[in-house]
Amino acid sequence: MQLAERITTSKDAGLGNLLAAPKKNQVSFAGGLPDPLLFPQAELNAGFNRALAGTAAALQYASAAGYAPLRNQLATRLRQDGVPACTDSVLITQGAQQALDLIGRLTLDAGARVIVEGPTYPGALAALGTYQPKFCTVPVQEDGMDMAQLATTLARGGVRLIYTVPDFQNPTGTVMSLQKRQQLLALARKYDVLVLEDAPYRALRYRGTNLPTLRELDQDDRVLHVGSFSKILAPGLRLGWVTGAQDIIDRLVQLKSNSDLESSTLTQRAVSDYLANNDLDAHIKTLRRIYARKCTAMVATLQKHLPASVHVSNPDGGFFVWVELPPELNAEEILARVKDEVTFVPSTTLYPDQNVKNGMRIAFTNPDVAAIRRGCVKLAHGICAEIENAEGNYRVASTM
Amino acid sequence: MQLAERITTSKDAGLGNLLAAPKKNQVSFAGGLPDPLLFPQAELNAGFNRALAGTAAALQYASAAGYAPLRNQLATRLRQDGVPACTDSVLITQGAQQALDLIGRLTLDAGARVIVEGPTYPGALAALGTYQPKFCTVPVQEDGMDMAQLATTLARGGVRLIYTVPDFQNPTGTVMSLQKRQQLLALARKYDVLVLEDAPYRALRYRGTNLPTLRELDQDDRVLHVGSFSKILAPGLRLGWVTGAQDIIDRLVQLKSNSDLESSTLTQRAVSDYLANNDLDAHIKTLRRIYARKCTAMVATLQKHLPASVHVSNPDGGFFVWVELPPELNAEEILARVKDEVTFVPSTTLYPDQNVKNGMRIAFTNPDVAAIRRGCVKLAHGICAEIENAEGNYRVASTM
Repeated sequence: MQLAERITTSKDAGLGNLLAAPKKNQVSFAGGLPDPLLFPQAELNAGFNRALAGTAAALQYASAAGYAPLRNQLATRLRQDGVPACTDSVLITQGAQQALDLIGRLTLDAGARVIVEGPTYPGALAALGTYQPKFCTVPVQEDGMDMAQLATTLARGGVRLIYTVPDFQNPTGTVMSLQKRQQLLALARKYDVLVLEDAPYRALRYRGTNLPTLRELDQDDRVLHVGSFSKILAPGLRLGWVTGAQDIIDRLVQLKSNSDLESSTLTQRAVSDYLANNDLDAHIKTLRRIYARKCTAMVATLQKHLPASVHVSNPDGGFFVWVELPPELNAEEILARVKDEVTFVPSTTLYPDQNVKNGMRIAFTNPDVAAIRRGCVKLAHGICAEIENAEGNYRVASTM
Repeated sequence: MQLAERITTSKDAGLGNLLAAPKKNQVSFAGGLPDPLLFPQAELNAGFNRALAGTAAALQYASAAGYAPLRNQLATRLRQDGVPACTDSVLITQGAQQALDLIGRLTLDAGARVIVEGPTYPGALAALGTYQPKFCTVPVQEDGMDMAQLATTLARGGVRLIYTVPDFQNPTGTVMSLQKRQQLLALARKYDVLVLEDAPYRALRYRGTNLPTLRELDQDDRVLHVGSFSKILAPGLRLGWVTGAQDIIDRLVQLKSNSDLESSTLTQRAVSDYLANNDLDAHIKTLRRIYARKCTAMVATLQKHLPASVHVSNPDGGFFVWVELPPELNAEEILARVKDEVTFVPSTTLYPDQNVKNGMRIAFTNPDVAAIRRGCVKLAHGICAEIENAEGNYRVASTM
């Protein structure tokens, strides 16, 4: 039986492993899992109760674009963040992941170029990879994408889409500067390319203030702004959204309909009820307070137990600490060394070419502070052991 | 901004319109909507309450393949129907529609051939069409696909997939005979082609007894059997499933993960709880009794008000009555005539080439019996008016 070329030539992105629950006695820093103690379980339950106590329409087929009152609530929240949006220009998706899939479907033919940050979110590589594009990697710097490289890559032609996480980038935690946001949009205009702004972490800032979104700065309707309830409410709901120019959203609604008809109207009604009867911003404030504490615990523990040759990021928000090892080290070997006790994502899976080996994505949101400290000590020991091992190899090599 | 070729060359399948709620004073026979009075609202509410009262895991990321207890319950139900299945070989999807999308993704490159029945489910054309295949239509007869044409089409080569609805076919309501099921599988083996058995209506038989599924008869693991809770429980849950050979299911799990990470574990836990605490088969028995009554009302009313030149099907199960008009008639013109009062699906949207104009798909499950009778009388009047109009045109034409 002959399968599609995308199957016979692709590798498993391993997203399933990332999101699996940790094994017993294992601290997982791998998946971007929220802290389950912070899920507003009772409030969401009340939302489901009210949705199901009302009309039977909560269980019927409804709308490919999504439940209009929820789209309206999201449009209001987006406008409060400076993003132009109205009910009609918000499409509800099956988590942000489906928005990435649909945008790939909209823009990519086999062999078309898509620009991603290096390193980047592996789920974006998996979703967009379905459409067999050629990935072009532009390095991430402290203040976002390397604009000179972005310009060079665009100049080569054939680029259909720029994928970026401007706020608390997955995995480096960096924030794209205002200047770079403007440069990126000017370049996208020059080469007439769509921009996918993936913003699941934007509300989770622990220090400082947010910059305007790309969609706010967008002067010619080329930015698709994607968000999600997964990190600020609960991933088990599987609700995300995308907003942008009306004609593009209309096409995405059609693609959504072809793909799975629609998202659960019941879940959308329950979340709409939650938003109407609760203060999501107050809830996010709680998340920020607790995640900031976890982030500090992780950064402090790693810095305390690691030599200066290992760079540990100190992000202002988001879910991840990024560790850069000395260039001769391989994060996969460290993972093999420590994986029974602690897990993380090695950088190979965060680059389309899997060619950068010395980075580590370490998520701090899911374990409690004690587990974070315990896991980080073990991780630091594993890294130090690997450094010693590499130095030993180096000494052996240089005396031969 | 350049979009993908699949966008620039495709037409809107109009699925959104099909599933829209009817306008005021309009009887909709268009979408395959269940009767909302039959949704077990309180029982499902209890399922959500129990799922949310328990562990916070109900709101966390979980598993791309689905909630294991639900997969196990489905495997048991499938085995009771003769379909070989175990927990691992059942993948939970976002309604059956997503299973179609994922199977297209698995098998189809642009230009590959996929065989569909003519007429067929428009959602299958939309889902599989994403991957830009060449659709080959094999006519449906009283006892299923025309096997001689199937053989000829396969012999031309390049076929990757056969899509069929063997039980209460959408839209004709026909059931594929046992002999044809065996012939189809022998042909699929001869040409080494995968078979997609779409079975959302199988449990909804109003007369007689079911034949074995293609998956039960499948001797060399080439049938993917797709089912759904949409027609037997509630579409608003957005839960379907696919089972087949383990290595193919494993690949589909991976594609599901890339596409939307996973289906809502909360909804899956709620439905799993529903299945554990309620008798789904007793519920289906109620559906069968009520839908049988609606079907009879539709067939009787149409037969009473239509001339013998119009063929009205009398299906043994499923959601649809199929009306075949005299060949010179165009169902779209009838729809234009009656659409303020009654809607249905004209056959043009049920063929990939949109070249058959004289068929009508009429769903009987959603309106109550009084509305069915009222809508069918109006529909019959519209058809009769169109017949008279055509005869008038014919008389004018033949006297010129």
